[in-house]
Amino acid sequence: MTDLPSHDLIAQLRQICGAAHVLTHDDPGADLSPWEQDWRKRVRGHALAVVRPANTPEVAAVVKACAAAGASIVPQGGNTGLVVGGVPDNSGTQIVLSMTRMNAVRAIDPANLTITVEAGCVLQNLQAAAENAGFLFPLSLGAEGSCTIGGNLGTNAGGTQVVRYGNTRELCLGLEVVNAQGEVWNGLTGLRKDNTGYDLRNLMIGSEGTLGIITAATMKLYPLPAAQLTAWAAVPSMQAAVDLLGLAHQRLGPGLTGFEVMNQFALGLVDKHYPQLRVPLWQDTPWCVLLENSDSENEAHARAQFEALLEAALEAGCVSDAVVAENLTQARGLWHIRESITLAQAEEGLNIKHDISIPVSRIPAFVAETDALLAREVPGVRMVDFGHLGDGNLHYNVQAPEGVDGQVFLRDNEERVNTLVFEQVARYDGSISAEHGVGELKVGKLPLYKDPTALAMMRAVKKALDPQNLLNPGRVINCP
Amino acid sequence: MTDLPSHDLIAQLRQICGAAHVLTHDDPGADLSPWEQDWRKRVRGHALAVVRPANTPEVAAVVKACAAAGASIVPQGGNTGLVVGGVPDNSGTQIVLSMTRMNAVRAIDPANLTITVEAGCVLQNLQAAAENAGFLFPLSLGAEGSCTIGGNLGTNAGGTQVVRYGNTRELCLGLEVVNAQGEVWNGLTGLRKDNTGYDLRNLMIGSEGTLGIITAATMKLYPLPAAQLTAWAAVPSMQAAVDLLGLAHQRLGPGLTGFEVMNQFALGLVDKHYPQLRVPLWQDTPWCVLLENSDSENEAHARAQFEALLEAALEAGCVSDAVVAENLTQARGLWHIRESITLAQAEEGLNIKHDISIPVSRIPAFVAETDALLAREVPGVRMVDFGHLGDGNLHYNVQAPEGVDGQVFLRDNEERVNTLVFEQVARYDGSISAEHGVGELKVGKLPLYKDPTALAMMRAVKKALDPQNLLNPGRVINCP
Repeated sequence: MTDLPSHDLIAQLRQICGAAHVLTHDDPGADLSPWEQDWRKRVRGHALAVVRPANTPEVAAVVKACAAAGASIVPQGGNTGLVVGGVPDNSGTQIVLSMTRMNAVRAIDPANLTITVEAGCVLQNLQAAAENAGFLFPLSLGAEGSCTIGGNLGTNAGGTQVVRYGNTRELCLGLEVVNAQGEVWNGLTGLRKDNTGYDLRNLMIGSEGTLGIITAATMKLYPLPAAQLTAWAAVPSMQAAVDLLGLAHQRLGPGLTGFEVMNQFALGLVDKHYPQLRVPLWQDTPWCVLLENSDSENEAHARAQFEALLEAALEAGCVSDAVVAENLTQARGLWHIRESITLAQAEEGLNIKHDISIPVSRIPAFVAETDALLAREVPGVRMVDFGHLGDGNLHYNVQAPEGVDGQVFLRDNEERVNTLVFEQVARYDGSISAEHGVGELKVGKLPLYKDPTALAMMRAVKKALDPQNLLNPGRVINCP
Repeated sequence: MTDLPSHDLIAQLRQICGAAHVLTHDDPGADLSPWEQDWRKRVRGHALAVVRPANTPEVAAVVKACAAAGASIVPQGGNTGLVVGGVPDNSGTQIVLSMTRMNAVRAIDPANLTITVEAGCVLQNLQAAAENAGFLFPLSLGAEGSCTIGGNLGTNAGGTQVVRYGNTRELCLGLEVVNAQGEVWNGLTGLRKDNTGYDLRNLMIGSEGTLGIITAATMKLYPLPAAQLTAWAAVPSMQAAVDLLGLAHQRLGPGLTGFEVMNQFALGLVDKHYPQLRVPLWQDTPWCVLLENSDSENEAHARAQFEALLEAALEAGCVSDAVVAENLTQARGLWHIRESITLAQAEEGLNIKHDISIPVSRIPAFVAETDALLAREVPGVRMVDFGHLGDGNLHYNVQAPEGVDGQVFLRDNEERVNTLVFEQVARYDGSISAEHGVGELKVGKLPLYKDPTALAMMRAVKKALDPQNLLNPGRVINCP
């Protein structure tokens, strides 16, 4: 195959999508930075072009043109990813395939409890479409106002309701995908049971655009809960938080839709930088827990269940004090505190972030041991421990010692701290990327911490489905 | 690679597993029929040997020996599969790898809500181990006293609680697998979030032993429900059954753990052949529904919820009459009726079975149209329509006309009836194998009804992971 000169490819892409939807640096007044710059501003790439197809046949034609030209493709949704998986490299040869024009809700099937949407649909719009039809689409996360369902699927996004509804993977019933050969796989089934062959759907989900391009999806809907209550509990230790989780599973069953843990330092940062948020109960306890109870009956029932749980927990000693939000405003306020930790950390200065998971039972020992290890190895570090304890997922972040410049701290310590934390994660049978994915950021780490047989199988799958290495090369797995 | 003479391979296998655990037809008094004969007695194969490894290193060594000798391997659990996926062909060259000696429960982690078991563990023993520890393992199906969790994973088994807990796939968090190269992938994570690469777990699940051999698994546990109630409702039409399902989702939320539908003819067969079971309400209604409500509080609460649901349904006209089981014995009796349909059908004579799924919303039209089509094309056929309506899964079976010999009926009509039904399934965006898998039985049908791009990707994955085509060849996908 002879690679076409790039201007021929661009002419072809303009033919396919219309000139207005193929952006290049040569266009007058061009600014491709929204597509070339990653969310956390770690990397700035340089694309050959940004292509914005309107429908699936256009995506297929774009892939065929790129394959013929030997140009690699970086699929992109809302560009809110945290691991540098959706921006081009700086070679100037890659095509960014922006899916945001494909944002339609194609169908809602109430009796089948499904919604079919295009990949570029913003998560918040998908939530709203479901709610307008009288249903819940439970995926919920910080970036929901900008991220797309295609990106959520590509990265298997997690969020705050995983303890009950699972990750994006568990919410998906069917996909439409353009593969690396530019062929369309129509797998938009709304079926809950289909055992006709290999699970290509889950293979695509979480593959970060390296195995195919998700163009549409059929997602599960749930009945809207009749009531949703939020509580905030002070707990004397991480072990107590784990005990409270067990009690909550037992008492609330599937009503338990959220279980977040936050350490005192994390809440202290929120209190320091956003005193108006009035963080409750944090001053006299090492940890707080935020719980959410969704009820299919009514608020009174939810409240009675919640109060019985918290009483039992007080009696068992795994809770020292607790409040239940009186109304929606108070509930939102409590969630707002939880969600402000990241911003409060940023106010305090640069920090080293982790997105790890550990079996829930082993989290207390992991945190105690790793906190102590870091305190020993990097004296003065301040631990911002918080996360989705219900799923065993911690954002185990490391803030510079008091008075130390964040930039200097990161330069001198990031690699070392990462290694210390990741080695501990491996020792505790955990994962170095729980919900954010691999991208470019962790692709070099995977060989150190992932089972070598699994890596070999991943590489074989990548080579089989994308033999030209055209789809988002260098992300998830390196194929030399 | 030169293939070893088969006696050299057998000697090697005896070295690996011990002579007592390698069975051949040359052994004195040998009877390999339990491993060579499929459950429904459709096919009788002839193996070179049956090998019964005791642990994962033995499985790995067996695979390496077979790969070196060019002998293909048929993994087998309880041998209860319905699609001829677990017995050898009749070439006399295949190795049956029976997993039943690997039946240990390796670990239970209550705080993490997980159980780790070996592949050969019988499903009922896994359920019992969970219950003894105070938890529910919700997978439940007819063959649970004989089938193994490895087989359940290999075929992604469904069963009666899928409406709430999902298929076997959704219940699995981690796998240990021996791949086609005889390498062990240790993926026995108990993590609910792990985004470090491609989803090999779900790729293995449902691959029917064609991509790797599952040797152990970490499965999810749930709190035991405080109460479980069963109801039986007469409904005036299939559309009414679908409406009742919607109402049940709304009213019971995740409490709805079972939703089965049965037509009058199916229940009439049970009444005819097992009159002692005393089928309720069937005589004056075209359909009955069996519902199960699992409650995390107590029986009184479950009963109140159930009664409110049924009252609302009576009022809405989607239920004409209903009973709620008074106690566990009555509840078991109702389930026993549902489970006796298959046996009653067998008493009545041979019949043509289907295991299909359709989006729930389209089932009423599908059933009406397909019933009429079959009545027209094969006059006198009697439809045994029943199944897991909550999951859109019907066992849409066709009984010979009154007085016609079943054997003759099958000989003359099976292929034609299958084609009529499968074409209808395709028209309604359904699946020709909902929960039983593909095996050998449907491998030739897949190219007719499955998306060609998906088939091409499946073939590429098979060739990538098992280039010698050693693992259960000829099942799921043909690789010429």
